[in-house]
Amino acid sequence: MPSSFASQTYTARAAGFANDLAVQLLKLMDRKKTNLSIAADVTSKAELLQLADLLGPYICVFKTHIDILDDYDSSVPEALTALAEKHDFLIFEDRKFADIGSTVKAQYQSGVYKIASWAHITNAHPIPGEGIVHGLKEVGLPLKRGLLLLAEMSSKGTLAQGKYSMDTLAMAARNRDFVFGFIGQRRLPLDEPEKEDFLYLTPGVSMAQSGDSLGQQYRSPEQVVLESGCDVIIVGRAIYGAADPVAEAKKYQEAGWNAYLQRTRRA
Amino acid sequence: MPSSFASQTYTARAAGFANDLAVQLLKLMDRKKTNLSIAADVTSKAELLQLADLLGPYICVFKTHIDILDDYDSSVPEALTALAEKHDFLIFEDRKFADIGSTVKAQYQSGVYKIASWAHITNAHPIPGEGIVHGLKEVGLPLKRGLLLLAEMSSKGTLAQGKYSMDTLAMAARNRDFVFGFIGQRRLPLDEPEKEDFLYLTPGVSMAQSGDSLGQQYRSPEQVVLESGCDVIIVGRAIYGAADPVAEAKKYQEAGWNAYLQRTRRA
Repeated sequence: MPSSFASQTYTARAAGFANDLAVQLLKLMDRKKTNLSIAADVTSKAELLQLADLLGPYICVFKTHIDILDDYDSSVPEALTALAEKHDFLIFEDRKFADIGSTVKAQYQSGVYKIASWAHITNAHPIPGEGIVHGLKEVGLPLKRGLLLLAEMSSKGTLAQGKYSMDTLAMAARNRDFVFGFIGQRRLPLDEPEKEDFLYLTPGVSMAQSGDSLGQQYRSPEQVVLESGCDVIIVGRAIYGAADPVAEAKKYQEAGWNAYLQRTRRA
Repeated sequence: MPSSFASQTYTARAAGFANDLAVQLLKLMDRKKTNLSIAADVTSKAELLQLADLLGPYICVFKTHIDILDDYDSSVPEALTALAEKHDFLIFEDRKFADIGSTVKAQYQSGVYKIASWAHITNAHPIPGEGIVHGLKEVGLPLKRGLLLLAEMSSKGTLAQGKYSMDTLAMAARNRDFVFGFIGQRRLPLDEPEKEDFLYLTPGVSMAQSGDSLGQQYRSPEQVVLESGCDVIIVGRAIYGAADPVAEAKKYQEAGWNAYLQRTRRA
């Protein structure tokens, strides 16, 4: 089982984070007894807001792709923010920023979506080099936002692995005021004790499927939380595509939470 | 000087491409005597369309970041398309897709921007694995679009290099019907003859500056076209930020074209 951080409770770990939003998220998870995030990959605002209201009670993070909504308008962030307050969850725009610093700064702050103004969390690929973190930080830190870096991906043939993942870890460690964790499949490093604590949010979680035709690969909540030491399970189509999304969300919430209790030896 | 492909004219090389759009671009460049692309990183639609109309005569490709326009509406793609026809250039939305296949498919086709419906060219990071190419291809190929992969970046500390770049090249070679080239700083591979021809479009070109405070690094048209064997120079702030953008565009057009003539031994 990976690292000493993974064996501590979320609340106990909060003290080790420099980013305010990470502290908020860790406490929220224990308070609400959930490490489940829903990936709401729907294409209409009505569906998106309905999912947020319906599944809000069972999740810690609501993950959006705001740029696939066909009927987006500025009422969407307002309504989402109200639902986040009503149900006590954080909003994570899964933008996967991947450009140079000056460009991502504009993409994060401006444009139609003004992501920084409503998304508590966003994420970025480290490929362009550390300028991407600095550019996003200039916008996000004054707004008390937090950033995740993509250390690994869940898709087949991903190039984000090995030295790439370790370079990402080092980049995050140099920017702990803003970067509080990773999108990844397992805690890093694998071969030595972690020096600093980071949160790991893991997509590609499903209790039924093992893959799709476009290269996505799935793992179970137990594999992700217990074996790989990750903190938040991100579940998409497996929940919102189910006949009864609420029943399915509860099932994943329970599976993720039990794995966390086992990991922290409280179950 | 790199590879036998680089010493041929754009028109002669057209026969070696499987993607229709690449053929169109190569012929356009020789017809119009320009290998200049403008990176129009402006935040209002009026500025964007003004730049396209003003600089259209001197460029082969107009590169946009549609998601930084504060006042975007559906009239923008229509107006851009009309200007592309008027001035004979192609539109390249520099989206840097970077997600799994099913997600990029939706981001490319749907949402507010419907990028596939108006952008002749777009680009993607290969990090998620080949599913990203397949996802985009399902949308773009029926529309006769073309894709560039990011083999390298121009920013400081980029992780896109070495084996990463070679994996990208292999991914492109398996998808020549849709992928026709790269965003990169030099032709690949560096140590052996190229088996197949690809176009290289190179950002970070400036005749004056050497860098910005967020890690961007600049090189001259001669370095890019002559020394590194790239095909299209992408120039941003150095042109649209100048007191006289048209005069500056002409200067870059001439510098890029002369470097190409020298490379193909016609000057």
